[in-house]
Amino acid sequence: MKAFVMKEIGRVGFMDKPVPEPSPGDAVVKTTRALICTSDSHTVQGGIGPRKNLTLGHEAVGIVHAVGSEVKDFRPGDRVLVGAITPDWGDLASQNGFPSQSGEALGGFQFANRKDGVFADYFHVNDADANLARIPDSLSDEAAVYCADMLSTGFMGAEKGNIPIGGTVAVLAQGPVGLMATAGARLRGAGRVIGVESVAGRQKLAREYGADEIVDFSSEDVVERIQELTGGQGVDTAIEALGADITFQTAVKITKPGGTISNVGYFGEGEFIRIPRVEWGVGMADKTIATGLCPGGRLRMERLLRVLEAKRLDPTHMTTHTFAFDEMERAFEVSDKKLEDVVKVLITF
Amino acid sequence: MKAFVMKEIGRVGFMDKPVPEPSPGDAVVKTTRALICTSDSHTVQGGIGPRKNLTLGHEAVGIVHAVGSEVKDFRPGDRVLVGAITPDWGDLASQNGFPSQSGEALGGFQFANRKDGVFADYFHVNDADANLARIPDSLSDEAAVYCADMLSTGFMGAEKGNIPIGGTVAVLAQGPVGLMATAGARLRGAGRVIGVESVAGRQKLAREYGADEIVDFSSEDVVERIQELTGGQGVDTAIEALGADITFQTAVKITKPGGTISNVGYFGEGEFIRIPRVEWGVGMADKTIATGLCPGGRLRMERLLRVLEAKRLDPTHMTTHTFAFDEMERAFEVSDKKLEDVVKVLITF
Amino acid sequence: MKAFVMKEIGRVGFMDKPVPEPSPGDAVVKTTRALICTSDSHTVQGGIGPRKNLTLGHEAVGIVHAVGSEVKDFRPGDRVLVGAITPDWGDLASQNGFPSQSGEALGGFQFANRKDGVFADYFHVNDADANLARIPDSLSDEAAVYCADMLSTGFMGAEKGNIPIGGTVAVLAQGPVGLMATAGARLRGAGRVIGVESVAGRQKLAREYGADEIVDFSSEDVVERIQELTGGQGVDTAIEALGADITFQTAVKITKPGGTISNVGYFGEGEFIRIPRVEWGVGMADKTIATGLCPGGRLRMERLLRVLEAKRLDPTHMTTHTFAFDEMERAFEVSDKKLEDVVKVLITF
Amino acid sequence: MKAFVMKEIGRVGFMDKPVPEPSPGDAVVKTTRALICTSDSHTVQGGIGPRKNLTLGHEAVGIVHAVGSEVKDFRPGDRVLVGAITPDWGDLASQNGFPSQSGEALGGFQFANRKDGVFADYFHVNDADANLARIPDSLSDEAAVYCADMLSTGFMGAEKGNIPIGGTVAVLAQGPVGLMATAGARLRGAGRVIGVESVAGRQKLAREYGADEIVDFSSEDVVERIQELTGGQGVDTAIEALGADITFQTAVKITKPGGTISNVGYFGEGEFIRIPRVEWGVGMADKTIATGLCPGGRLRMERLLRVLEAKRLDPTHMTTHTFAFDEMERAFEVSDKKLEDVVKVLITF
Repeated sequence: MKAFVMKEIGRVGFMDKPVPEPSPGDAVVKTTRALICTSDSHTVQGGIGPRKNLTLGHEAVGIVHAVGSEVKDFRPGDRVLVGAITPDWGDLASQNGFPSQSGEALGGFQFANRKDGVFADYFHVNDADANLARIPDSLSDEAAVYCADMLSTGFMGAEKGNIPIGGTVAVLAQGPVGLMATAGARLRGAGRVIGVESVAGRQKLAREYGADEIVDFSSEDVVERIQELTGGQGVDTAIEALGADITFQTAVKITKPGGTISNVGYFGEGEFIRIPRVEWGVGMADKTIATGLCPGGRLRMERLLRVLEAKRLDPTHMTTHTFAFDEMERAFEVSDKKLEDVVKVLITF
Repeated sequence: MKAFVMKEIGRVGFMDKPVPEPSPGDAVVKTTRALICTSDSHTVQGGIGPRKNLTLGHEAVGIVHAVGSEVKDFRPGDRVLVGAITPDWGDLASQNGFPSQSGEALGGFQFANRKDGVFADYFHVNDADANLARIPDSLSDEAAVYCADMLSTGFMGAEKGNIPIGGTVAVLAQGPVGLMATAGARLRGAGRVIGVESVAGRQKLAREYGADEIVDFSSEDVVERIQELTGGQGVDTAIEALGADITFQTAVKITKPGGTISNVGYFGEGEFIRIPRVEWGVGMADKTIATGLCPGGRLRMERLLRVLEAKRLDPTHMTTHTFAFDEMERAFEVSDKKLEDVVKVLITF
Repeated sequence: MKAFVMKEIGRVGFMDKPVPEPSPGDAVVKTTRALICTSDSHTVQGGIGPRKNLTLGHEAVGIVHAVGSEVKDFRPGDRVLVGAITPDWGDLASQNGFPSQSGEALGGFQFANRKDGVFADYFHVNDADANLARIPDSLSDEAAVYCADMLSTGFMGAEKGNIPIGGTVAVLAQGPVGLMATAGARLRGAGRVIGVESVAGRQKLAREYGADEIVDFSSEDVVERIQELTGGQGVDTAIEALGADITFQTAVKITKPGGTISNVGYFGEGEFIRIPRVEWGVGMADKTIATGLCPGGRLRMERLLRVLEAKRLDPTHMTTHTFAFDEMERAFEVSDKKLEDVVKVLITF
Repeated sequence: MKAFVMKEIGRVGFMDKPVPEPSPGDAVVKTTRALICTSDSHTVQGGIGPRKNLTLGHEAVGIVHAVGSEVKDFRPGDRVLVGAITPDWGDLASQNGFPSQSGEALGGFQFANRKDGVFADYFHVNDADANLARIPDSLSDEAAVYCADMLSTGFMGAEKGNIPIGGTVAVLAQGPVGLMATAGARLRGAGRVIGVESVAGRQKLAREYGADEIVDFSSEDVVERIQELTGGQGVDTAIEALGADITFQTAVKITKPGGTISNVGYFGEGEFIRIPRVEWGVGMADKTIATGLCPGGRLRMERLLRVLEAKRLDPTHMTTHTFAFDEMERAFEVSDKKLEDVVKVLITF
C-alpha cells in the first residue's frame, strides 16, 4: 500500500509499505478521509526527535478492513472514527485518570510517533473495542474526522478551564484548535468569549464558532484591551491555543485571581515557558495552570460525534483545502508553510 | 406602601406596611417587575410552617430607592436585580462554599421566609454590595427578573449534574425551573437533552430551550423509553425538576452507573424520598445524588445577566400571563391553581 | 484442585475443579491467604441471584503460577495481591472514570460473581498487568490481603466523603469496612472522627484505627448525641458502612447542609432506601449522597500497599480468627453467623 | 500603645500608636502571642512596595478587648485566634470561592499590608464574627498561633496538591511552611512523603512532622534522587515551599504526568518563574500547577484548632526562639537574618 512518510528530519514523501495486520484485540482500517495537523509539521521538523520512514498523520476516519480475534464490537465494513490518541487503557497512568499519558509522558499519542500514522491506504488501531467509534449515518466522513483531534483538543481546553456559566473566556489564537476551544467555551456556557486573532479569515470563523468579541493583537495591546473589556477584572479562563511563550505570558496576565490558564498549545521550542511573576500574584493569586493532551478513546469520540449529530456546530467550515491522497506532497506543503490562508487541509482517499 | 401578604396559612391578600429603611450595609429597592413562583404557593399552604402577614415573593427587579451608609457600589436610581437568595456571606456555611445554607439549612432564602418578600412597592435587601447586580441597558426588566430564581436554580441543576461535553441528559418536568435546567444542560454542552413532559405548551418551550427529544410520561413508560433512546446505557445526568417521589425514583433508574442525579425539585410532602434499591446498584453503582438551593449573590446574578446580554437564550417566552400589582389576587390564583396553561406570571408595578 | 463453592442458594461446600489456565493477557495465582467477607454471605443467601457451583471469595493474595503470552510485568513466582474488583479497563464505564462499573453496573466485581472466586488452590486473574500488584518484602501476606477489599472500600468511603482537613466525620458501624473507613477518615485529615458502634471489641478497634469518640447506638440516640457533640451543626461527612435503611436515614440527619453522605454499605434487602425529607432540606440543603464500589486495579493496590509499608496502620488487628483452607466450612459458618465476636476470618493455604 | 513598625523600606522599630477602635462589625484584640514570618522580612525589604510606619506582623492570638455593635458571637475577654488573612466575605472574589483574593489580588492579606498588623499591644480585626475563632481551653496560645498562617498555608499546599491516599509527595524546603506542608501531606493520606532539605535541624523536624525520607539537595541531585526513589515514575504531588525559580523547576521535573505542582512559595524576585519546557511535556503532560494564598476565616481556623485539639501534631516544636515584645528588635533580627538555626520566633506580650 501507499504511505506518506517522514523519511528523516526535514524530508517527507511517499513509499510502499505492507498492509498492516491486526493482533487479537486490534483492527486495521481502510482510510477514507484524513486531516493534516500542525503537529505533523512539528514532527517532520524534528520536534519529537529523529524518525525513519515513519508514516505521518493522526486524524482519520475509514472503513474497518480487518479485526483481531478478540474484537467484539466492530466488524469489517463498519464506518469508524479513531481518536488521534489511542491509549493503553490498563496502564497505570490510565488508571490514574490520564490515559493520554499511558506508557510514558504523551504516550497515548501513538500514531506517527510510536507507530505508523494514518496517511496511508490502511492503518492499524490498537485495542479496537476501546479506541474506535462507529460514525452515525447522518454524519459525513469530513465532519467526523474533525473529532479525532480538533474537537477533542479544543474542547479539552474549555473543559480544563473550569468555565462558570456566564463566565468570561479569552481564547488566544484562532487556528483550528483555538477555534474549537472557542466553540468549546460556548458549549460550556461562557457568557462572553473573546477571540484573540489577527487574520481576517480566522476572525470570521471565530465569530461563527462563538466568539462574542475579537481582539486583534496586531493592532491592539491584548492585555490592556482585555482588562478594558472586563472592567479591569480579567477573565475567568484564558485558553492558550498557540504554544508560544509570549502568548502564555499574556494568558497569565489577563486571568483574574482565582481563574484558570488552560493550555492546549504545544510548545515547540525554547528551554522554558515563562510565568510573569508579578501578574501571577508572586505565586499566591490562585491562578491555576492546567494542561493536557487531546483525550482519545471510544467514549470521548462517541460524545463528540453526538455533538455533531445534534448540530451544535459544523466543523467542516474549517476545511479551506481538499486534496486527493495522491496530491499529498502539495497538500503537506500548503499546510506546512501556511500557504493560501490555509486553516485545515482535508485529504480524500 | 402596599404589600401582598400571606395572612396566615391558606390565606393571602393586600395590606399596608411602612416603606422599609436600610441599615448601614443594606438597600431598599422600589419594585418594577416581579414573578410569582410555585414556592409562593408552597409557603401559603404551610410548607415552611405558619407565618403571619408575611409579604410574599422572592423574584424581583427594581430601582434602588435608598442605601445604607456603608454601601459602596450602588446609588439611588440604579436599576438592579436581586437574587432570590440573599446570603449572609460571612457565615460559616458560606465560608464552607454553601452560602444558600447560611445561618441554617436553606437560610439564604430570606425573602418571604425569614423576612418580608418582594411583592410590595418597596423591599429591603441585606448586604447590598454583595447581593445586588446592576442591570445592563440592553436588557429589559422582564428578562432580568428571570435570573433571580429561574435561571439560577435551573442552571444549577445542570451545573451540579456534572454533564460531560456530548453527554446525555434527561430533565424530568418542564415547568419554568425544568425549562431552565434544559437550557442549562445545553449551556454545559450536553450532546442530547431529553425533556420529560406531558403538556403540549411546555413541550414546545422545552424544544425551544434546548430539548432534542421529548418523552411524554402520559403516553410512554419513561424508564423504558429512555433506556431505548440510550441503547440501554441510561443517561449521564438526570435532573429532577418536579419534587415528587416518583419522579425522583425515575431519575435514579434512568441514570447510568457513574452518572449523577441532580435534584432541583422542592419536595413538599411525605416523610421520605425513596431511592429504588436495585437500580441504585444496591448502594454501590457510583450514582451520585446532588442537590442544592438556588445560588444567589451579585457575582452569580452578573454572570446570569451576561448570559442574557449575549443572547444565549430569551427567558421571557415563559411569561404566559402579565398582571398589574393591583391585580395580584387574580394573578396569584392563576399561578397557584395552574389555570390557563400558565407557565409563569409576571407582575408589573 | 479444591474449591469452596456456593452449590446453590443457601448451600456451600468443597468440590474439585481443574486448575484454570491463563488467556494471553491473564494470570493464574496460587492462593496463599484469603479473607472471608460479609458479601460472600450475601451471595450465598441469593443476593445476586442463583449461582451453581460458583467458587466463592474475592479477597486473596498468592504466588503467580502461570501467565499468558502477553503479560509483561509479572512472572511465575511473584508474590502478588489482586484487588477484589478486576475491571475491564478499556470498557466505556472505565473510560468514564468508573472502572468498578465496567461491563454493567458493578461489573468490575468478577470474582465469585461473574466468574470463579479465590477460595481455591488456584484462581484466574483477567488483565494481569493491570490488576495484579507485587507485594513488598516488608509486608506479610496477611497484611497485604486486607488491601484487596477492606482498605480499598473503607478508604473509598472517606475519599468520596469530601472530608476537609480538620473536618468532623461520623462512621456508622465499625465492622471491618467501617473500621477502614474510620482509618480512611483519619488518613484524609479529619479533625474529629466519631465511630458509631455498640459491640465492645469493635469499639476498641475503632479507637485504635482513629475514632476520637464512640457513640453507642444501643444506649444513646445517635442523632441527638451527634448534634450535641457538634454543637448542633452536624458532621461534614457521614459514612454509611452498614447498608441498612435506618442507618442511612441517620446519616442524612446528622450531616450538615453542604455536607456529604458517603455510602459504602451494600443494601441487601428492601425495595427502597429512604431519604428523610425534612432533614434532607426538602431536597435543597446541598447534602450530597455519594456512593461507589470498591476500587480495584494495580495502581490502587500499589498505593494501598504503600500505606501499609509506611506503617500508617496495621490491618491485621482485625483478624479475630484463622483457619486452614481445609476448615473452610467451619470458617464460613463463623463469619456467616457472626459467631464468637468475629471481625474478620483469615484463611491459610 | 506600643507598635513595632516598618518605618520605611529597610528600617524597622517601635513607635507609639493609639489603641484602635472597632467599627460596628469589627473587634479589637489585646495581643498575647505572635509569630514572626519570613513575609515580614519580604515586606520590610520592599516586596510589596513602600510603606510608612506600618505595624508589622500577621500571626497572632489574644484576648478580645472590644467589639463593635453588630458583633454577635464574641465578647471582651474571649481568647481568640485570627487568621493571617481576613477576607471581605461579600466581595466578588469571595463569592467566586477565593476569599484570599477579595478586593484585589492577595487582597485578603490585610494585616501589615493594607492596614496595621499584629505586632502591637492591640490590633484591629475586620468582620469579627467571620474572622475570629475561639481557642479551646485545652490549647496553649503558643500552639494556637501557629494556625494563623503556618498550618493554614502549609496544609493548603497539600490540599491543592490533589494527593491520592497512598500517593507519593515531595515537599521542597522544610522551613516552617514546608514543615506544615509535610504534615499536611501526611494528613491527606500520602503513602510516602519526601522532604527536601539540607539543614540538619529542619531535617529532624521534617521527620517528626511526617517525612518518610529526606533528600539533601546539598549533597544529592534532587531530580535524579527522586526519580530513583520512585522507580522513574516521579511523584504524584510536588509542593514548592520556598519560592525560588530553581526549586519550582525541580518541582515540575519530579512530578509525574497527571500529577500536580502545588505552589505555596512566595516568589520575591525576578521577572519570571520558569517552567522547564521538555519536562512539562511541551505543555501537554497533564501536569497541573496550583497556587494559592493562606486561607483565612473562622471556619478554617476552627478546623485547624480542632486538628491540634485532637493531637494530630504539635506545631510548637518549631519554636526555636522566644522573646518578649520589648525585645522585638533583636527577635526580628534573628528571624530576618536566619541566625542561630532559627525556625520560628515566638513573641510574648
